[in-house]
Amino acid sequence: MSQLENFPIAELSVGLSKTYSKTLTEKDVILFAACSGDVNPVHLDKAYAATTPFGEPIAHGMWTGALVSAAIATQLPGPGSVYRSQSLNFKHPVKIGDTVAVTLTISEIKERVKLITLDCEAHNQDGKLIAKGVAEVIAPSEKQIIAAPVLPEIVIG
Amino acid sequence: MSQLENFPIAELSVGLSKTYSKTLTEKDVILFAACSGDVNPVHLDKAYAATTPFGEPIAHGMWTGALVSAAIATQLPGPGSVYRSQSLNFKHPVKIGDTVAVTLTISEIKERVKLITLDCEAHNQDGKLIAKGVAEVIAPSEKQIIAAPVLPEIVIG
Repeated sequence: MSQLENFPIAELSVGLSKTYSKTLTEKDVILFAACSGDVNPVHLDKAYAATTPFGEPIAHGMWTGALVSAAIATQLPGPGSVYRSQSLNFKHPVKIGDTVAVTLTISEIKERVKLITLDCEAHNQDGKLIAKGVAEVIAPSEKQIIAAPVLPEIVIG
Repeated sequence: MSQLENFPIAELSVGLSKTYSKTLTEKDVILFAACSGDVNPVHLDKAYAATTPFGEPIAHGMWTGALVSAAIATQLPGPGSVYRSQSLNFKHPVKIGDTVAVTLTISEIKERVKLITLDCEAHNQDGKLIAKGVAEVIAPSEKQIIAAPVLPEIVIG
């Protein structure tokens, strides 16, 4: 993704839907743990995870929350959005190598205050529901088409 | 933190409260962006952020969500917990160098299904409310006192 394009309030309508997908890597799990301090061994320690009902390391539930945030920031409504609230029900674990697709669908628009409500659903590559919830976002006023920031190289080692 | 100790269901009571704190670094913002793909320039690009009402780069809202996850995983109830749901209202931005303290307080216990409800509040170093919400977690059955996983070194290049 080299450009980010937003949908300002004037371009939004109920039912508009966008999807953002990402495949979970072991590196993603380590980076999420590092930036949050969530060192739950069920995510990081294969031997420990093997003793749990999951049997193997799983993603932090809130990693799916981070994907919802990415979907809002990069897809709908995109840059210039202000995140107001999020609810999430975690339904199914995500394992290393799983691809999670977050679909956002506008369910309500309060034009006067530019507040939009988004139904959020995350499914894995097998169509299994990973998480669902609702986001509230202040939509941008102005159209923006901007270069996506390029992240520096990150080496784990 | 070298050890993680959990509170199994038998040790939990309504009103029990624990706090987890973390100071936001620029590195945390980059790692959160990398593991999620949320490259919203308001978090990553000083020049862009200066054009927004925030004036400078702010944390991803869901970074505070990740801290709530860390608080559940490391403090209350700790390892062996299963995250069921989370709601969050984002109230105030977090800037680089801010210290965010997440306080979890048990508001309800459904003993039969081991489901606990936690009131979640995040404040910054000035006592300003950053975010608040409610988490539902399946509490662990068994006591665990385990070594906290040690993360590998992460170098941003």
